[in-house]
Amino acid sequence: MQITKAEIKLINALKKSHGRKKYQAFIVEGIKMVEELIRSQMNIKLIAATKEWGAANTDHTQLPIFREISDRELQKISNFSTSNQVIAVAELPKEQDFSIQKDDLVLVLDTIQDPGNLGTIIRTADWYGIQKIVCSKETADAYNSKVIQSSMGSVFRIPLFYTNLVSLLKAHQKTHHVYGSLLSGKNIYKLPLKKSSFIIIGNESKGISPEIQDLITQAIYIPKSKHSKAESLNAAIACSIILSEFSRL
Amino acid sequence: MQITKAEIKLINALKKSHGRKKYQAFIVEGIKMVEELIRSQMNIKLIAATKEWGAANTDHTQLPIFREISDRELQKISNFSTSNQVIAVAELPKEQDFSIQKDDLVLVLDTIQDPGNLGTIIRTADWYGIQKIVCSKETADAYNSKVIQSSMGSVFRIPLFYTNLVSLLKAHQKTHHVYGSLLSGKNIYKLPLKKSSFIIIGNESKGISPEIQDLITQAIYIPKSKHSKAESLNAAIACSIILSEFSRL
Repeated sequence: MQITKAEIKLINALKKSHGRKKYQAFIVEGIKMVEELIRSQMNIKLIAATKEWGAANTDHTQLPIFREISDRELQKISNFSTSNQVIAVAELPKEQDFSIQKDDLVLVLDTIQDPGNLGTIIRTADWYGIQKIVCSKETADAYNSKVIQSSMGSVFRIPLFYTNLVSLLKAHQKTHHVYGSLLSGKNIYKLPLKKSSFIIIGNESKGISPEIQDLITQAIYIPKSKHSKAESLNAAIACSIILSEFSRL
Repeated sequence: MQITKAEIKLINALKKSHGRKKYQAFIVEGIKMVEELIRSQMNIKLIAATKEWGAANTDHTQLPIFREISDRELQKISNFSTSNQVIAVAELPKEQDFSIQKDDLVLVLDTIQDPGNLGTIIRTADWYGIQKIVCSKETADAYNSKVIQSSMGSVFRIPLFYTNLVSLLKAHQKTHHVYGSLLSGKNIYKLPLKKSSFIIIGNESKGISPEIQDLITQAIYIPKSKHSKAESLNAAIACSIILSEFSRL
């Protein structure tokens, strides 16, 4: 079946954050990322592809969600500057499906604003088997195309949701430790780290917000070389070093 | 003294990689980065700034390298979209000043192509006190403005040069170990790591090139969670985890 005008309109709406919120869906572009999406548990609503992609993926062209799209039409709606073959629409994960269990190691993103950093953090969390990611409402939208690209599809594999972090941390105070990187923290290389924990990663320039700092039960610090004049680490880098330490558990 | 037309022409030429090669110099923009440059050992040839910046930095306006520039003129030559106050020209470090010592822990970049990754790697290397960085000739130009920005000025503090990696590694085979991340490598968390080493970081999509792989004396691997379906880590992230492990020495 050919793609309809209404579907093209939907895809265009989903390029923006408020469109994704309104329709509770997001778009995925490009052969590699759509493959990752198909392999994931995400609920796919539409796959719009050129004849070329269809010929190489005949098992998908028979599905009721498949739509054919001309190269010209796809070029017009695509975020990609170079030639693209396929674009898919998937449902956003439902918040009610998300719950934190006793043994979960949960990554908490306190206002990560750079889409590249966010995608890289999700990719690294996926590598280290992090079970869940929780983001403050001010964190960048994980379903924007830059984040999807830099996550290399990991965003399809880790449950992630946006919420009020203070309420969330308070609700799990009895069962979960709260680790956060502060200048006053203890050397992470010498600390026994525990599962059933939240790991807080702060904003790129402001760090962890004061009201979240108050809820940290174990402040940590990544020690720098005594010769170094560097002021800080990139947020995604700090996150990866912390996750690496937790992976030794 | 007012900036001259020839100096403006030089600044414009230094925006491009071949201009930097030709004049053996590079530009640094913005208050924060120019401050880092001034604090570093780099040889500064020119500081062009608005009246506003001059008023706040009177210790620099008297220097022979200082030039006054109008807001309008600066806006015209700046890479920045928003208002800028200062731009500086510094000499590229000289290759002959660069030598590898017996105890050096040297980071070797085998064709890192993304400027953001390169800057982040340099920033992390600075944090962990890496003494030197060597890049393949195909690695992104470390003195382009995106790299300077994402390095947060660390590029001014670590000696870095471009060379033929195969010749370099062969020349130090007797004194230095060569570590590189390969799928066949040993778990980095369980390996005794040694100083007097080169640490190879490979290209974002192709990894370490075959001729460099042949020179690795200890292949390493960052183990992923048994539940993870992630295919790889971002190059800057892998680098940071490896440097973190070496920092425990």
